[in-house]
Parts: sequence; C-alpha cells; structure tokens
Amino acid sequence: MSRTWDLRSDTATVPTADMLSAMVSAPVGDDVLGEDPTVNELERMVAQLCGHEAALFCASSTMANQLAIRTHLRNPPESMLCHWDSHVFKYESGGTSLHSQAQMIPIKPAMNLTVDDIKGHFVQGNMLGHRAPTHLVALENTMSGVVMPVADVREIGHFARDMGAVVHMDGSRLWNAAKGEDELHEYAMLVDSLSLCLSKGMGCPVGALLVGSRAFVDKARHFRKAFGGGWRQAGILAAAGIYAINNIWPTMPATHALAKRLAQGLESLGCVLALPVDTNMVLIDIAKSAAISTVELSDALRSRGVIWGAVYEGSYLRLVLHHQIDDECVDIILATASQLLASNK
Amino acid sequence: MSRTWDLRSDTATVPTADMLSAMVSAPVGDDVLGEDPTVNELERMVAQLCGHEAALFCASSTMANQLAIRTHLRNPPESMLCHWDSHVFKYESGGTSLHSQAQMIPIKPAMNLTVDDIKGHFVQGNMLGHRAPTHLVALENTMSGVVMPVADVREIGHFARDMGAVVHMDGSRLWNAAKGEDELHEYAMLVDSLSLCLSKGMGCPVGALLVGSRAFVDKARHFRKAFGGGWRQAGILAAAGIYAINNIWPTMPATHALAKRLAQGLESLGCVLALPVDTNMVLIDIAKSAAISTVELSDALRSRGVIWGAVYEGSYLRLVLHHQIDDECVDIILATASQLLASNK
Amino acid sequence: MSRTWDLRSDTATVPTADMLSAMVSAPVGDDVLGEDPTVNELERMVAQLCGHEAALFCASSTMANQLAIRTHLRNPPESMLCHWDSHVFKYESGGTSLHSQAQMIPIKPAMNLTVDDIKGHFVQGNMLGHRAPTHLVALENTMSGVVMPVADVREIGHFARDMGAVVHMDGSRLWNAAKGEDELHEYAMLVDSLSLCLSKGMGCPVGALLVGSRAFVDKARHFRKAFGGGWRQAGILAAAGIYAINNIWPTMPATHALAKRLAQGLESLGCVLALPVDTNMVLIDIAKSAAISTVELSDALRSRGVIWGAVYEGSYLRLVLHHQIDDECVDIILATASQLLASNK
Amino acid sequence: MSRTWDLRSDTATVPTADMLSAMVSAPVGDDVLGEDPTVNELERMVAQLCGHEAALFCASSTMANQLAIRTHLRNPPESMLCHWDSHVFKYESGGTSLHSQAQMIPIKPAMNLTVDDIKGHFVQGNMLGHRAPTHLVALENTMSGVVMPVADVREIGHFARDMGAVVHMDGSRLWNAAKGEDELHEYAMLVDSLSLCLSKGMGCPVGALLVGSRAFVDKARHFRKAFGGGWRQAGILAAAGIYAINNIWPTMPATHALAKRLAQGLESLGCVLALPVDTNMVLIDIAKSAAISTVELSDALRSRGVIWGAVYEGSYLRLVLHHQIDDECVDIILATASQLLASNK
Repeated sequence: MSRTWDLRSDTATVPTADMLSAMVSAPVGDDVLGEDPTVNELERMVAQLCGHEAALFCASSTMANQLAIRTHLRNPPESMLCHWDSHVFKYESGGTSLHSQAQMIPIKPAMNLTVDDIKGHFVQGNMLGHRAPTHLVALENTMSGVVMPVADVREIGHFARDMGAVVHMDGSRLWNAAKGEDELHEYAMLVDSLSLCLSKGMGCPVGALLVGSRAFVDKARHFRKAFGGGWRQAGILAAAGIYAINNIWPTMPATHALAKRLAQGLESLGCVLALPVDTNMVLIDIAKSAAISTVELSDALRSRGVIWGAVYEGSYLRLVLHHQIDDECVDIILATASQLLASNK
Repeated sequence: MSRTWDLRSDTATVPTADMLSAMVSAPVGDDVLGEDPTVNELERMVAQLCGHEAALFCASSTMANQLAIRTHLRNPPESMLCHWDSHVFKYESGGTSLHSQAQMIPIKPAMNLTVDDIKGHFVQGNMLGHRAPTHLVALENTMSGVVMPVADVREIGHFARDMGAVVHMDGSRLWNAAKGEDELHEYAMLVDSLSLCLSKGMGCPVGALLVGSRAFVDKARHFRKAFGGGWRQAGILAAAGIYAINNIWPTMPATHALAKRLAQGLESLGCVLALPVDTNMVLIDIAKSAAISTVELSDALRSRGVIWGAVYEGSYLRLVLHHQIDDECVDIILATASQLLASNK
Repeated sequence: MSRTWDLRSDTATVPTADMLSAMVSAPVGDDVLGEDPTVNELERMVAQLCGHEAALFCASSTMANQLAIRTHLRNPPESMLCHWDSHVFKYESGGTSLHSQAQMIPIKPAMNLTVDDIKGHFVQGNMLGHRAPTHLVALENTMSGVVMPVADVREIGHFARDMGAVVHMDGSRLWNAAKGEDELHEYAMLVDSLSLCLSKGMGCPVGALLVGSRAFVDKARHFRKAFGGGWRQAGILAAAGIYAINNIWPTMPATHALAKRLAQGLESLGCVLALPVDTNMVLIDIAKSAAISTVELSDALRSRGVIWGAVYEGSYLRLVLHHQIDDECVDIILATASQLLASNK
Repeated sequence: MSRTWDLRSDTATVPTADMLSAMVSAPVGDDVLGEDPTVNELERMVAQLCGHEAALFCASSTMANQLAIRTHLRNPPESMLCHWDSHVFKYESGGTSLHSQAQMIPIKPAMNLTVDDIKGHFVQGNMLGHRAPTHLVALENTMSGVVMPVADVREIGHFARDMGAVVHMDGSRLWNAAKGEDELHEYAMLVDSLSLCLSKGMGCPVGALLVGSRAFVDKARHFRKAFGGGWRQAGILAAAGIYAINNIWPTMPATHALAKRLAQGLESLGCVLALPVDTNMVLIDIAKSAAISTVELSDALRSRGVIWGAVYEGSYLRLVLHHQIDDECVDIILATASQLLASNK
C-alpha cells in the first residue's frame, strides 16, 4: 500500500505503534471514582506543567472549553467576550448560550484580541437591568495557527481581573504556541483556566485537559458528569497523552519549520498567504492566489496520496501540518504545484 | 407649579385625564381565563390592524420580544441574526441566550440591516455539528428613530423564508415608522411576528402587544404564563391601549415634525446629527458638536423645566420627543442653546 | 341586572369604585428608572411589614416566585425541594427547570411539609458528581387554604440554614394565613424570601410582591427586566395594592368566617370536606359527597347567579371565598343544595 | 500478587488481554468527520441488533441518556415522567432540567413502572398555561438489577404514542435484561430510543450507544458535538465494544446464575434480600439482615481480596456481579460470612 498524508487538520493524526503500546500497558481503574492511576498521573502532570492546582481529563477540547465556560459563568444574566473567529463562537454549536444561558459578544479585531478590544466591548454593570454584564473573557491561542503574544495575554488578564472578570484560554494548540515548557507555564499562569488538546497536533486518538484551581476543577468535574463526560477506565487514553507530552510535543518545532518551508514554496509559486505562518498552519487566500487553481491542484495531489485542506470559511485553503506530515509530503505538494503551473502556461 | 418636559425617552409619558377615564370605565375579568373583555378587544383590534390572526397583551416590549424569540426558537442548537445595536442584542439582558439557549449573531451594517448583511452571516446547516444554524432573523423598526424601508424588510423576509427561517420585528416604535394603518399592515404582513409597544410614544402606562399566527400566539401565551406574565384584570391597562390607538397614534406626525424642527434648530447652532431624523428621535454626535457644551446646556435647561437626554452609548446625546413635548419646549431648548452660544463667545 | 358571585377563585375579584379612585389619583413615573413614587411607596410599605430590606412589585405571583427561584439558584447542577401539590411544582409550567435549569424534588407529605420531610429528601453533596445538591426549599402558605404552622416554618428554616440552603415561601395567600401584621412579620422573618399576591384575595386587578434582602431584590430586579417584567407607570397598579393592604386585608377574618359557615352548611347536607377550612377555601371530596350531585347543584346555582368552583385535580370541588362573596351568596348556595336534596329524595 | 474481586459495581471491570488486543489492531479515523471505520461498524452493528435505523457511540450512558432527552424534548414548557429511583432522576445531576430545561415528574410505583402509573401522572395539555405537558416517558431496564417485563414496556409504549409522547429506555443494563438477541430486539422495537452501556457488565473501558431513527440520531449527533462528546480516533474504544458484544455478552447467563448462588447463600445465612435477583445484582436490606454485621463482614472480606458494595441509599448493601467475578469469589464471601456468624454466636 502506498503512503498517504492528510493535511485537512491535525486531528487527522493516528496513534503510532509506540503510543498504542503505551496505551495497552497502562494501569487503569474507574475514573468516576477517581481510581484510574494513569488518568490521575496525566492530570497531575499537566497541572504541574501549567503551574495550576488541578487538571481534568475530558473527551475533547470542546468539552473542556464548555465546562470551563459553564463553571465560570454562574451569575446570569451575563456575557462573555470572545474573538469573532474563535472556536467557542463559531465552532462549538453556540454552546455558551446552550449550556450556560450566556450571551457571547464577538469582537472583530485587526488580528489577535488586544486589551483595547476588550476594553471597548466590556459590559460593566447592568444599566438599570438592560445589560448582561461581562464576567468572562475567552482567548484562543493559537488561532488559525497564529500565536497570541504573551504581552497581550498579560494585559488582558490584568484588565479582566481589575473588572472582576476571569479569563479562559482555549489552548487547544497552546502546545504549538509555546516555545517549550517555560513559555507554556508562562501563558498558563496569566489566565484563570485553560484547555489543552491531545487529539490535534499531539497525535492522541481522544482527549483534552482543562486546567485551573482545585475549586474550579472540582466544580468542572461535577459538570463533566452532568454532560456525560465521566468515563471509566480512561487510563488507556490518558496513557497516550503522557506518551505524547514526552514524545510528540518535542517534535513540534520540526513541524513548524516544515510548515514554513511549505508556505515559502507555495508563495514562490504565486500563492498568497492569508495569515503569517507562526506554527503548523498555512492559510492560502484563494481569491488572491488565482495563479494556481486550488481545485485542480487538490485533484492532482489526491492521486499522489496527499489529501489537503478543503476550502475554509468560503475564502481560504487551510493546510495543517503535524507529526505525520514529512518532507516527502511537502516535496510532493511543491512539485505537483510546480508541474501544474508549467502545464497551464 | 411650573411645567416640565422630559426628553430622556418616550417611556416618560404619563396617562392623560382622558386616558385614565377610559381605563377606570373599562369592563374587566380574569385574563388568565381569557375572560377580560377589554383585553380581548385590544388583542382583536391590533391583530386586525396587522392582518395577523392573533395578538397577545404583554407587560412590556421586552416581554413581547423575548416571548417571540422563545416561541420561534425551539430547535437548538440554533442562532438568531440581529443588528449589533438592536434592543434584543444590547438591552434585553442577553435574554435570547438566557431564555432560549440560543446564540445571537450580531451584525454591524452600514445603517439598517439589508438582505446582503443577512446573507453574509446566515448559518446554514450545522457543519458536522460545529455550528448553530440560523432559524430566526430579528429586525427592529424604528431603530434609534430611523425607519427601516419596506423594501428591505420584504427582501429579508423572502430570503429568510427561502432558507427555512422566520422573521420577527421588534416594532416597539413601528407606530412611528408606519405612515398610517396601511403601512403598519404592510410591514406586519412581511414578518412572521412583531411586537408593538404601548408605553413608549403611545403614552400608555404599561403594555405591549405580540402579534402573529393563532398557533404562534397560543404557544407564546403558554410561555407568557411561564414567565409570570399572565395577569388578571388587565383590561384596565388594555383600555389605555385602545384609547391610544384611537387618540395618540394620530398625533405622531406632529411629533415627528416637531423633532425635525428641533433638529434643524440645533444644527443651525452647530450641532451635528449622528443619524437622520426620520421620526421622534434626535441623536447628536457629542464629539462633533463641540460648539455647544452638552453638559452646560443640560444644566441650563434643567433650571427651565426641560430634562433632556443623557449621554447614550458614550458618544451620543439622545433627545426623544412624544405627545407630551410641545412647541414651547422646543422654543426653550433652542433659545437656551442660542444664549449659551452667545455667552460663550 | 341581577347580582352574580364567582367562587371559582379569589382571582375573580374586580376592583371596587374606591380602589379605582385610588388608582387614577396616584402619582406615577417611569418605574424602570425607579421613578414611580407609588410603586416605591408600595415596595417600601410591604418590605417594612415583612421586616425585610426590600420588595419588588411584579406582574404576578408566578413571576415573583420564579424570580425568587432564579435569583436563589445560581449554582448548578442543583435541586429545589417542594410540596408535590405546590404551585411551583404543578402550576408554574415547570418554570424552575425552564428558567433556572434546576431539578425539582417534589415531596408528598401527610399534610403540610415538616422538617422531617425536608430532611428525608435533602440532597447533600453531589456524590461523585451524580447528584444535584439541594440549595433551596420552597414552601407555600396557605396551600389549598390550609395554614402552615409557624413552628413548622421555623424548624425547616433552621435546618435549611444549617445545610447551607435557603428558604422561599410562596405566600400568595399569606395575607390569609397570617392573623394580622404581627404574624405576617413573624412568618416573613423565618424565610429568606417570600412572595405576596395582590390579585387574589386582596382584590387588586394585577400584581404581586417579592420580598427579601436588598442584594436579593436588586438581583431579582435584574432578572425581572430580563423576563420582560420591567414596567413603566406601574404606580396605577401599585396604588390598588396600597389601598388593598389598608382596606381589603382587614376584611379577611369575615371572609374566613363565611367560608366556615358555608363549609358547615354543606357538611350538614352530607358533603365531605377534603381539607380543614382554615381560611377562604372549601374543598369538597366529590366521591365521598355522593349525596349531592355537584353537577346538578352547579347548574342550579348558575341560574341563581352563583358560579362556583369547577372540578379540581379530578377529585375535588374547590370553592374560594373573597371580599366580593357575601352572606346572601352563601344563603343561596345552602338553600339551593337543600332544595336539591329534598327534591331528589 | 494475590487475586482481588470488586463487587461495588459492574463499572469496575477492566479490559482483558484479548479485548486490548482487539483495540490496538482496529483501523481508526476521525470520527467527527464520520471516518472512523470501527466506530461506524459498531454503530451499524448495534443499530441492526436493535432493529433501529441508527446508533451513536457516546462516552457514557449518562451522555447517551441526556442526548436522548435533549433530542426528544424540544417543545418547552414540557415534562418527562420517570421512576423516582431511576438513573435519570437520581444520578444524572438533574441533567434533564440542566440541559433540556424540562421538568421531571418522578413516580414511586410498587416495583417497576406500569401503564397505570404513567396514566396517573401524565400531564395532558397545559391547563390555561399552568402546566408543562408530558412529551417523554423514560424507562430503565434493568433497574437495580430487576427486569422490566416486555408486556409492561409494550403497554406504556402504546399509551405514550396515543398521547403524542415518546418513550426512551435507559438500557444501560438491557444486555442483562434481555435473554439473547431476539429479546433485545423485541425490547428495542417497543421504544423510540434506547441507550446501551458498554462499560458496565460488558467490560469495556469506555462507551455507550444511543439507538433510534436516522433523524433522531442525526440530531443527537449535533447535540453530542455541542456537549463536547465528539471524539476523534474513537475506533480504539469501539473495537472493545464489538469484542464485548461477541465475547462478553454471551457470558451473562453464567454471571446471573452466580448472582443467584450468592444470593441464596447469603439468605441461608440470615440475610434478607431487598429485591429479587433477576440478573447480576444482589441487594441486601441492612436493617432486616441484622444477623450479619455488614461492616464486620466487609472488613473481613477486604483482607481476603474481596471489595464488596458499600452502603447504597442509606439502607441497602448492593453487590454487583460481572464477568470478572467467579465462583472462587462467591465461595470466599459465603465462607467468610459463615465463619463470622459462627464466631459471633
């Protein structure tokens, strides 16, 4: 069988043999009773990495984010500020309103959210009962592969706390954003809670973590049960997470370098990038990249084993790299694009 | 006692002697049992004016809007499109999320919402479970005193119905927007439901109406009871509504002409309007109207019996006219502003 | 026109001429801005009667109860204990679950709820996330006309507070339960919040009050706006409340004596009471009162101007007395029943 | 290391070597995209077993039940009938109210729910807006190990459908209730939806299935994503489910026979059973079984490797058998109890 590569998302990764081996040899127990030693170890390990008191192993980043929002927002009528393009606003089925009865106020900033964006939209007080005061600011890092600078997170955190609000970071791809353990810790300490995904670039089959204070995580654990997210011998999945932190996370710089190489190669062929390539994503502006027909290229690549990103938000072609994309794949993409260009001249 | 005028809002109206007389002489009964003849008469009268099957007498426009939204949105996860500055997004405590668990998607158009704004934000399908599909479009007419053209409402209505969505109009001030009964009817027939306020420009102490099909109003009536909006001998209040439709509504053209006179007078003194004066509101852009100190003017007016609009949204001074504002009041405002300008030179 | 009497409910009362006169002469203002002097006076008056800090004028007892529950229950997942036959469980459209996402745990006691009933159903802790802890106990007084003894309320209050829960009393008919101002005050001081209805035995057209601490009422006021219960010149209705407290409340002992006379008369004719007649309600057990056909009697009475209670919960005939039921009405009922019995022999 | 047995719950099972082997060799893909072949195979297999159109693989039975309830209940204000001791009422954190804003009406029948219990509590119509009509009946089979007869399920199903309501069965332990594939199919065809657990007696680490029509499952899948229950390469877990259906399910009759042996042995030593032993649970009435001190016995057993059920609901000792409990374990329990009795004489 010939090789294939899937660039549609970093959720396309599949467990490696070593990861599977770690999974089946992990000791397990009933996690609803708090008796799964591998889950407990993963939660302890990630909490410590982040400098927070506790962590909760969840079925997905969406669950981790929605549990965080549900746990923070318990003083209705209230609102949450977030980026217009954020996962919590656009890709979690309106969960903030569905689960927490809370209003989302989506902001369209120039790029990442800054403290001025937050200040300009923060609802303080209820104005004779008319408004839903802001109690939570939700950040996302990376978003579309772009890193949110530490300084911006710090300023937003200070402002939010001054206003009596809290900050949650959707850090599904914070593994990508942070340059190593120190920066992960630095980001984590600037927010009240954060989620971290294991089934995206970290290559695990299932799972994400929600991190915060002991009281916060205890309450989130109650909500996790109510959401049906309490699971039994989940240590099998947690073992993959421990393996990934030790073995996949260190490979991300190489993935990011590969993404840069792919991006530069495509640019040299006339593609126009929609966003800077900070980490593992390459977003091509389809309208501006008319030199190459993304449809034709997509077809040509599929026949060579490369499934690449479909159209995203109607305007972008999103290519997502991960530890199962290698130089050979990038070579194929660039060569194919180059041939296509030549034959179309 | 000297006279006073209140321009902070058209909710500042108080019942006239004739209105009070109509109220105390109305026959009443238990409206929860459907036995209040005056309530029944008001509901019948307004439904007929609008060309819809039924109407429901509510304690406020906010209640009418939220009952409409709650009644329309019964297929979660789902979303509602609305104007960023609309009452339902900004001034109803996030009720759409609180009561109906639904996501609001607020649009910032150039002026009124057009069908292109709606098309550009409509969420069709759930995208593999990630999205909350749009089932409702909420319009507002007038908004900040500006009339939404019939043609725009028609186009949005057609598009929404094509997409399987419904349209609700917050017509709290549709009495102001519509030029008489025919246009009220025309607007009403273009939407699936609408609210009409009695305690704003119509001068009643309490009340609003929700209008729609029989099945829609029956369901909204159930929700009204659940919201605690079922009331007993409400005919006393309904009588004011019947009086207002017959006696106050016809005075609106005069009020609008007075608003125009006030606006032109203020413009000639250097004020810059933030929005056209279509109906009963005059919005002054404070930053651009530096010639006149709104604070000084406000103080000077208060001593002459005129309480005028406080600052609105941080940037605007909103003056709202109604049937209890007269030429004398406008004369005082313009004379005071003129004197202030002269003395500041 | 001949006189009629309506015993279906004490909500059937209509405003008297004196009450209407008080209503139209009351000073009013915009209550959303807190500027209606008559509303403010009623709220101050009722808070003081109850010994609590504040009160909120609402459109109905259902609204007052649901705002209380919504305000108390802001720590989901959580539960509320209540009587199986209570208004909040049976006759408020499941509002506790609808508005507050909270589980109701309904108790079927022998008669009124006692502290042992509460202890036996109280959910303490979440049991590894499985349970919704009890944060609120909802009492009702009177319920079906039966008075809840002060001692029982006191014991339940002590227990609830020991467990970190709060107590709300649906006191729609607490005016009937309490023997005067002192006992009203005594009951009120034993609970964290209470509702008091004005449109039942008090004879007002519309309205109820929610009473509690300043912070509680401020929060409930925010929710009232979100529910659409914010109203403008509501002083017209509040004036009826002030009138009723001063003029209708003192007539309740006479109403209760009349209810006893009616009950004893019916018993002497073979009717069996389902509950003791503590206040203004007479509940007849239909199955056990076979001597008299309630259907025949109902028809006979209607022709003499008496509309009496329809069947209730499938088994009871509920007769509700109020200040617009008099000795003549009771005489007619007993005479008619007596004739019917004689003719059926 | 010496052997241990855990009878606290059938959730205490851990994957066998063969099950683990099936898990690591399963082909996987991104299940959010519908591309995990093993998940697809499990869903197809279980749907077919049940005779329904579709199935959805979920993280837990609680999730499957709550998604079912959320999917069925989309016409508020509404209510759901259930058994007072059912999992959905007592052990899912009030999820029906939390997620679906719906009122639970819990019934205390003599034993299992019968159609008469349902008829006696069914809320038909909203009674002038006061009630939350019943739209769903939730059954549980087995409950506390007791089988609900097919005939009762059939009668309830007919009645519910006649009333326009639907029936969901929490069939977490329907594997235990049904005598083989035919009876599983028979039960399943009598209800609109059902959940089936894999991590209880079936011995899988994680997972449950929700079964119903295609449209129902499509909608539940949307809610699953909103709940954060969308997972990626879940085929690893699904493979355990396929293995269990083929290999663990057939061992249940032996487990049930063992439970009977344990129960009879304990009875012969003076224990009184609280419920008949239909399947894999033995419930001992502690108060009536004073001959044996459950605390002493528990301590003695622990030193011999048997962790048995802690006290349940304050009154019962619940012993749960599963495929990892064997004759040796039952022998130890009965011998230990016998010795304890002898030494206490």
